[in-house]
Amino acid sequence: MFQNLTEDQITLLVIKALKEGKKKELQKIIDELHPYDMALIYNNLPDKHKSRFLLNLSIPILTDVIQELEHDTQLELIKKLGKEKSSKVLDDMDNDDLASLLDDMSPEKMKQFLSGMKEEEFSIVETMMTYPPETAGRLMTNRFVWIRNYYSVREAVDKLKTFADYAETINYLYVIDEHHKLVGVVSYRDLLLADINERIDSVMYARVISVSVYTDQEEIARLIERYDFLAIPVVDEDDILVGIVTFDDILDVVIQEANEDIEKLSAAGKAIDFDTKAVVAAFRRLPWLILLLFIGLVSGSIISSFEETLQKVVALTFFMPMIAGMTGNTGTQSLAVVVRGLSSKDIDMKTSIKLIGREFGVGAIIGMICGILIFFIAFFWQGSATLGVVVSLSLLITLVIGTLAGTVIPLMLYKLNIDPAVASGPLITTINDIFSLVIYFTIASWFLHQLM
Amino acid sequence: MFQNLTEDQITLLVIKALKEGKKKELQKIIDELHPYDMALIYNNLPDKHKSRFLLNLSIPILTDVIQELEHDTQLELIKKLGKEKSSKVLDDMDNDDLASLLDDMSPEKMKQFLSGMKEEEFSIVETMMTYPPETAGRLMTNRFVWIRNYYSVREAVDKLKTFADYAETINYLYVIDEHHKLVGVVSYRDLLLADINERIDSVMYARVISVSVYTDQEEIARLIERYDFLAIPVVDEDDILVGIVTFDDILDVVIQEANEDIEKLSAAGKAIDFDTKAVVAAFRRLPWLILLLFIGLVSGSIISSFEETLQKVVALTFFMPMIAGMTGNTGTQSLAVVVRGLSSKDIDMKTSIKLIGREFGVGAIIGMICGILIFFIAFFWQGSATLGVVVSLSLLITLVIGTLAGTVIPLMLYKLNIDPAVASGPLITTINDIFSLVIYFTIASWFLHQLM
Repeated sequence: MFQNLTEDQITLLVIKALKEGKKKELQKIIDELHPYDMALIYNNLPDKHKSRFLLNLSIPILTDVIQELEHDTQLELIKKLGKEKSSKVLDDMDNDDLASLLDDMSPEKMKQFLSGMKEEEFSIVETMMTYPPETAGRLMTNRFVWIRNYYSVREAVDKLKTFADYAETINYLYVIDEHHKLVGVVSYRDLLLADINERIDSVMYARVISVSVYTDQEEIARLIERYDFLAIPVVDEDDILVGIVTFDDILDVVIQEANEDIEKLSAAGKAIDFDTKAVVAAFRRLPWLILLLFIGLVSGSIISSFEETLQKVVALTFFMPMIAGMTGNTGTQSLAVVVRGLSSKDIDMKTSIKLIGREFGVGAIIGMICGILIFFIAFFWQGSATLGVVVSLSLLITLVIGTLAGTVIPLMLYKLNIDPAVASGPLITTINDIFSLVIYFTIASWFLHQLM
Repeated sequence: MFQNLTEDQITLLVIKALKEGKKKELQKIIDELHPYDMALIYNNLPDKHKSRFLLNLSIPILTDVIQELEHDTQLELIKKLGKEKSSKVLDDMDNDDLASLLDDMSPEKMKQFLSGMKEEEFSIVETMMTYPPETAGRLMTNRFVWIRNYYSVREAVDKLKTFADYAETINYLYVIDEHHKLVGVVSYRDLLLADINERIDSVMYARVISVSVYTDQEEIARLIERYDFLAIPVVDEDDILVGIVTFDDILDVVIQEANEDIEKLSAAGKAIDFDTKAVVAAFRRLPWLILLLFIGLVSGSIISSFEETLQKVVALTFFMPMIAGMTGNTGTQSLAVVVRGLSSKDIDMKTSIKLIGREFGVGAIIGMICGILIFFIAFFWQGSATLGVVVSLSLLITLVIGTLAGTVIPLMLYKLNIDPAVASGPLITTINDIFSLVIYFTIASWFLHQLM
């Protein structure tokens, strides 16, 4: 019935049903919508209709919708619900979504916020919050169905049916032994295809791949990408199954990690999106910019120490921006290759050395080609072969050094366990500026007599 | 049995079994391995054992393993198999994986390569290759199970059982009407939970979200991320169900698109990873660098046209790298915000204007703070208040313009349907270099008398 309506048309239908108090109509619309769509419609509704719309949703659906909203809207909406209803929603929320909402709260505020929750649900969330951010412990949900290895397929399906409303709709059941240790996995598909009297033991897959509560989210993403899993089980120190991480969380992680790489590479500042206020965005960007301003002044003071050389041969100034710019550009290129490479796999010493060798080769080839090109340009533009030699020799050397800096600096940071992306593009660019100016003016001063 | 062995230990076991001709042992190991692990082991095997290892794999497992390998290794391995076996593997391969392998082949080479395939499978792949790259038509697989709306749950499960080996192990069955039009979707979980005599009509979800064969892969990724789907159905112009795109392909798409954004933002050149040869990497990077070299020379010629000013006040040179660098840096920051924002949602005119306004505000705030800072630095370093005013006024203006350039240029490209990431960081940096020098020297020449 609603297949072909646009978001706006459905919103209008919802408003009409709310105004006229037609509960049945409204229910029909709600039944056909995904939580994401309902969240969109909720955001689009005029304020006066929002509360009334919420009254018409059952707790499970309300919870689904809340999980699709932004954190600010979530908090606002939960306030609107009143103590009793909001406690039920908090109990019902996926614990990973709840943990992510609690991320920015102070411990006291958190305690107060969760005060109405069931003891049992509260203690689960409390435990999750003890794991470091961006680990499996924070991302996992405990809404999964486990089965015992001696069950029959029929018993497994019965258990699944009992817990259907409660469990995440993910494709696997995890099998545990009497100590709650993870011993196998069986997919819904395996269950559908198996004979109902078979034992789970004989249907399950025993070489189950799991992660620890402390496994980093990037590592989980790599495993899920590699094996095309829909979910991955999480075990604690004693190999006891404590949760699962589902692929939808991992898709968000992959997107978030890519955005972080880009933010850091461009020194763009943390978490700036289209809705961030100008003042907030400006102050998030400023720290890097002020640091870069001072580094830029270092370049200036290098130039000032070659003041005499410059005054004698002003033409040297003309090639300054090109040399500094090119060095920065090659450095950024190398940096991007290293940062993205590191995000998709770990690298050892051998790979590092091979990579540095490769980038040295790249720098040398690029340097020679650009160097020859600039010799002719300088010669024909300024009519001085010596100037041509100075500029082209400088460019060759600075390109090799720029490429190496863009490779070695992030690799060193990686070895020191610092995220290599903090060696942001602008930082590499600015460091390369300094390198290039020192090299350029040093070479120029060797040839000063011939240049004058 | 093999749960706790490392990759290397398993490889050794495989070699031992191959040497001693123990087929049963080998089969036991193979049964417990994921295709990805088998591919790793295949890569690690000494060349002399590779062919023998392949002989021990059944066609379906061989196909799974091949799908985990790199394109080069795939082609090599397929050659090794000989005509008959390789044709069977090609028939058995997921058609999206096969299509991706064919991507770089010339039409004649492709025809020859596929000549042994079944007519039916060949024509499916041939049709797929007619869709533009990076669309649903290229990513989809036809290995899915469809059911009719009048089936009972029992009939649906029976059909699933019949086609189990053939179909992708994805969580949904798609429901079609008598014209093969897509009318609904039902999950394996729904089937497990439903009564086996219920009609599919009454179990299925009718508001099924689908994409067209021509839908761009980024759009599909957005839908999958939004709705947490495991797969999305693909329909042709007449709404006829022709395939499905599965979440594992989409995870790859998201990673690939993020890498492309980073490559373009850093002008790093296409598809350079740790294994790319130096010469290849150098020539992929060179086109951008040579363009940027010439743009850098434009900066030089701007400086040369202010030669006289520079000769009179050499101190002006000292602040050149800082001003040019800062303008480039703010531009890159804005660019990164826009490019990543665009990758996660479409934006309309209203959002664009709001964004430009926001970035103007950011530029103004950053410009004022950095401007005041640099005034004092210039004053105390060079002892000239006029120079301080020139530098700080220039920095204010160039930072505002730099921020706007980093915002407006990618937005304009987006409006013109050009990928905004081509306005790479280095391009914006170099354009901002030129802007900043023109502004700096223009302001300096207004104050020339006081400066001298």
